[in-house]
Amino acid sequence: MNIGPYTFDEFKQKAAEFHGYAAPGLLVGGYMVELAKSRLPQGTLFEALVESQKCLPDAVQLLTLCSVGNGWMKVVNLGRYALTLYDKFTGLGVRVALDPTKLEMWPEIKGWYLKLKPKKEQDTDRLVDEIRRAGPSLCSMEEVVVPERFRRKAQMGAIGLCPVCGEAYPAHDGGVCRGCQGEAPYERLDQRQDMTDGPRLRAVPVGQAVGHKALHDMTRIVPAETKDPLVQAGQTLSPGDLCELQRMGRFEVYLEGDAA
Amino acid sequence: MNIGPYTFDEFKQKAAEFHGYAAPGLLVGGYMVELAKSRLPQGTLFEALVESQKCLPDAVQLLTLCSVGNGWMKVVNLGRYALTLYDKFTGLGVRVALDPTKLEMWPEIKGWYLKLKPKKEQDTDRLVDEIRRAGPSLCSMEEVVVPERFRRKAQMGAIGLCPVCGEAYPAHDGGVCRGCQGEAPYERLDQRQDMTDGPRLRAVPVGQAVGHKALHDMTRIVPAETKDPLVQAGQTLSPGDLCELQRMGRFEVYLEGDAA
Repeated sequence: MNIGPYTFDEFKQKAAEFHGYAAPGLLVGGYMVELAKSRLPQGTLFEALVESQKCLPDAVQLLTLCSVGNGWMKVVNLGRYALTLYDKFTGLGVRVALDPTKLEMWPEIKGWYLKLKPKKEQDTDRLVDEIRRAGPSLCSMEEVVVPERFRRKAQMGAIGLCPVCGEAYPAHDGGVCRGCQGEAPYERLDQRQDMTDGPRLRAVPVGQAVGHKALHDMTRIVPAETKDPLVQAGQTLSPGDLCELQRMGRFEVYLEGDAA
Repeated sequence: MNIGPYTFDEFKQKAAEFHGYAAPGLLVGGYMVELAKSRLPQGTLFEALVESQKCLPDAVQLLTLCSVGNGWMKVVNLGRYALTLYDKFTGLGVRVALDPTKLEMWPEIKGWYLKLKPKKEQDTDRLVDEIRRAGPSLCSMEEVVVPERFRRKAQMGAIGLCPVCGEAYPAHDGGVCRGCQGEAPYERLDQRQDMTDGPRLRAVPVGQAVGHKALHDMTRIVPAETKDPLVQAGQTLSPGDLCELQRMGRFEVYLEGDAA
């Protein structure tokens, strides 16, 4: 069954290009988004509320103009596989959820969605085929309203220059920016060197890495086929590994110890 | 100057298709993402950390495989216009920020970024042209490391069925899902009817709306040209308004009172 303007296979292709691979949740999500769109009055200027961080936001971004960067899509992670499209002025909208009571005919979908078996026992081809055949029949739908207080956009207000990092930030955040208040989830590399006093990591061309141990896993992603580690941390690299690494576009590696 | 594989005009077009319009922040963001990519060792499997919710996440999503739905992009809103691309295994990466000290040559960019003048006084054409000419020269860059605790993916764990709403949810959220614990930012329409006892809104074909008052603003978006309200709340609709509404794809409207 088609997903909006796309055939199922076209949407799989678009999903792989945007998301890295055609994840089952993204394919189901495509049907969910199109179902919600079809129930809004024609021409409605709508925004989106997504209740899961997994896959579903990308279905919205692929099939509507709502995105995280333009603020027309909000992700409120409630851990439920559901989304709402609503009129941005009135808040009136349609909520679509993947309904656990509608999965009896589709054993692979049920097993995947409710995590009834380990991922490696899933039959991906059959799962994707069930999703294609089931289409929007897996969904339940209800009319909802998103109240004005949730639709309001936060205003950034005046801009200040942070006296610590020198960057621009919303002045109402305080005397220094929130990054410099301790919320930044990274460390500067020079500071880290000071703190750990360890050697600085550097990348080594793969041609010089044979016989040395990999510092970390290296994953090979072939869209819709595999995303398993090709090399695992601590594994001694063979000439064959290096060919594979180069074929997947990895020309430099990090090694254990001071091998380089 | 080109933005990765795109000419500036091609990227503007892609930005408009994905984001609704070619926002200045998205165009600057394109240069920022490409600068960070160019400093990672070739073949690095990287993830992204974005410090602003505005525009910048969409630049990452347009120019990398990192997205909000595949979890390879995280938005930690610190209110700073900066992003980090980092090796997903080691955390080593490059942080690129839009640097306020590099704006002296570019008065429109400076005025826009530091909000030195009201939006309606901005000269958008000149702003976009300055962005095109300045390219990545507006950016500062530093090496950072994203520690393992921030790179770790949250595990969803076992799935339960919520006894209130019946939907699937992460069992570790508690006895009922977080939506039913009161975190859902919407109300069911039937419940709301019970609560307000007001009339139910319904859409009216535009052809029947002449002479009635619009219930809410209706915005006309022409990518890269305008996103101003065509009709404002309370405005009496003229036949001319209706033509414009139909031309922008709006065939039904909500009206004040019980006009329909």
